[in-house]
Amino acid sequence: MIAELAKRAREASRVVARCGAAKRRAAIEEMATQVERHRDTILTANRLDLEAGRELPNAMQDRLRLDEKRVAAIATALREVAALPDPIGETVRSWKRPNGLTVSKQRIPLGVILMIYESRPNVTADAAGLCIKAGNAVILRGGSEAFHSSSAIADALRAALEKTGLPADAVQLVPTTDRAAMEELLTRDEDIDLVIPRGGEGLIRFVAERSRIPVIKHYKGVCHVFVDEAADVRMALDICYNGKVSRPGVCNAVETILVHRGIATTFLPQLSSRLGAAGVELRGDEAARAVVPSMKAATEQDWYEEYLDLICAVRVVDDLDAAIGHIERYGSNHTEAIVTRDENTARRFRDEVGSSTVCVNASTRFADGGELGLGAEIGISTTKIHAYGPMGVEELTTTKFVVMGDGQTRQ
Amino acid sequence: MIAELAKRAREASRVVARCGAAKRRAAIEEMATQVERHRDTILTANRLDLEAGRELPNAMQDRLRLDEKRVAAIATALREVAALPDPIGETVRSWKRPNGLTVSKQRIPLGVILMIYESRPNVTADAAGLCIKAGNAVILRGGSEAFHSSSAIADALRAALEKTGLPADAVQLVPTTDRAAMEELLTRDEDIDLVIPRGGEGLIRFVAERSRIPVIKHYKGVCHVFVDEAADVRMALDICYNGKVSRPGVCNAVETILVHRGIATTFLPQLSSRLGAAGVELRGDEAARAVVPSMKAATEQDWYEEYLDLICAVRVVDDLDAAIGHIERYGSNHTEAIVTRDENTARRFRDEVGSSTVCVNASTRFADGGELGLGAEIGISTTKIHAYGPMGVEELTTTKFVVMGDGQTRQ
Repeated sequence: MIAELAKRAREASRVVARCGAAKRRAAIEEMATQVERHRDTILTANRLDLEAGRELPNAMQDRLRLDEKRVAAIATALREVAALPDPIGETVRSWKRPNGLTVSKQRIPLGVILMIYESRPNVTADAAGLCIKAGNAVILRGGSEAFHSSSAIADALRAALEKTGLPADAVQLVPTTDRAAMEELLTRDEDIDLVIPRGGEGLIRFVAERSRIPVIKHYKGVCHVFVDEAADVRMALDICYNGKVSRPGVCNAVETILVHRGIATTFLPQLSSRLGAAGVELRGDEAARAVVPSMKAATEQDWYEEYLDLICAVRVVDDLDAAIGHIERYGSNHTEAIVTRDENTARRFRDEVGSSTVCVNASTRFADGGELGLGAEIGISTTKIHAYGPMGVEELTTTKFVVMGDGQTRQ
Repeated sequence: MIAELAKRAREASRVVARCGAAKRRAAIEEMATQVERHRDTILTANRLDLEAGRELPNAMQDRLRLDEKRVAAIATALREVAALPDPIGETVRSWKRPNGLTVSKQRIPLGVILMIYESRPNVTADAAGLCIKAGNAVILRGGSEAFHSSSAIADALRAALEKTGLPADAVQLVPTTDRAAMEELLTRDEDIDLVIPRGGEGLIRFVAERSRIPVIKHYKGVCHVFVDEAADVRMALDICYNGKVSRPGVCNAVETILVHRGIATTFLPQLSSRLGAAGVELRGDEAARAVVPSMKAATEQDWYEEYLDLICAVRVVDDLDAAIGHIERYGSNHTEAIVTRDENTARRFRDEVGSSTVCVNASTRFADGGELGLGAEIGISTTKIHAYGPMGVEELTTTKFVVMGDGQTRQ
């Protein structure tokens, strides 16, 4: 059954790849319409999931819950994806060879994408819209808590494909949430080109260890702000505050603030009072606590921590090299920011920090497909192969070589 | 031991990433010099391998054999890689956001690359040169048949790194060829970013099934030429001849020729006499044998075959769609060519064939990093993630997002 599902996805992917930009766009617009039309069915299905999930933690129930406004937001997001520029067929680059051949790299779809996710039912529609936009077919494997909701949304999406004259199997929800079916999918490397798991670290490791198909991983975000000696103190306070307080539970929130020794006595008391007023617990190293004795003491474990909460580690460092060294040792390749007015320092931080997003005098919270101008986001990759950082439509494509000649043969 | 080796590679990779273009170039030039200086040691080591390999097939002994000319060729190839443009730090694209942020994608090294290969000792130097050029460290795991030769070459390369002031551990040869050590390496996803296996399908599947690190695969090349109804017959004959005869044992050689029904009676007799004179055995379907009865009969298995020999399958197809359908079903995503004077047909073939290289009126033999102008080649990827088709220096890099602001925070 799983093998057949993957095969149908492969076949559907060929139609989506070739149907043309106008048809893909029309299909995604129709998905938005059908989600609106299926609203009551989707909400009824969602109530089943919510009843079954009464024992789940509140935060999880909230992620699971749909209402009229959230269904409308799903449709709006689909329309935004439909309106993005079509990436397929674009000539990325082209050059001439001495023998007269014209060589170019042309953008093409990846083929079939397997999306594995947990409790947010809206991912069903978001992922399908982005994958179709990039000319792919998608296999959706949602979490068991949201199974009824995701099924109802997938029905709406498939109805839209059929109405537009595209194969419904370009969007398939795996009809079971047992792990054996997922494990079998992860061996279908003939028919699936890429796996994107979104969820907790346990899920991602499970997928990465079992998959024969390439996996794009997003483990966690241990993001840093480095407040340089030459920082504008007010700007540094704003960027730290925004990074920690605006939404502490997300992956681009700040977890550790590194403070240059030369500015520590000026900066730390103000940081402590600004973040303290917002209810943030600071955990400092010895040097930080020498300046602000009321801070809790940080342990080695704190430097590795993705708190996802109103807690922030603080460390005093001797210089830029020490800051970069700390990020290399404890960071997660997600997002780091520097605050400095010194152009040399800014340039070195920008060039030497290897994380997927590096911000100079800007908040780490900008590490997001929408904020960076990608139009939408299917995930954030913290591994370097294929895509690194926020992934939009383009990251769901690849390029092929096109060689145009008039009879050339190789000597 | 394996864990330490991978950790040392990770540390060395940070130095290579930051040392600057001039130093990387100097190191690779010095590698060429040191290979020349170590020539006698390398040739002595090679004689040990050849003696131990007296029972190997002739083709394998030939791949293994070094002489003064081949050592000189290794040095020349290194100098060519040294002279390529440095890819690191390049701003690939950049744009402004409404809030004043400048967002750009900046090219950075991948980090640590594990290269797994078989009997060609020159791959030791080629892979090291390309990886260092792209700012990476490399772990080389060569085949047991070439172990002494590869060790001697690696010694020369490491001496060059030290002489240039770079860590020798940026190039490490795994000091054992047992599979357990390779399997352990394939689990070190913390310290290794990419695995590139080069060799037989068995080796590649072994690696792909066991690796937790992303793998770029090159399975095989079942390349096609489609001779359209509107082909220039003489051009089609040249392209088929070049594709099959110029070097039958390589992955971009033609294995199957698809002939449009409307040109079959004209084309097939000439093809048979041209390829027959070069000693090629043709295996045709029924329609082809109706025109040239002396052809051997092809079986279903022939359409899947990578002969790597003077054998070629021939099939008559009804039209372009049938040709594309055949390629989708039996092809290997390597390289396909069309010969036609019809622009519409050429455009459809170019856009609809999803293989990694698509040639219009040019030989499949151009699917090669050097021929396409990439400067050098570390392999040819037939899977779509990260790189697709011939891989040069740029495919050993990735990009990060750089966000330049003047204090922006997220609303």
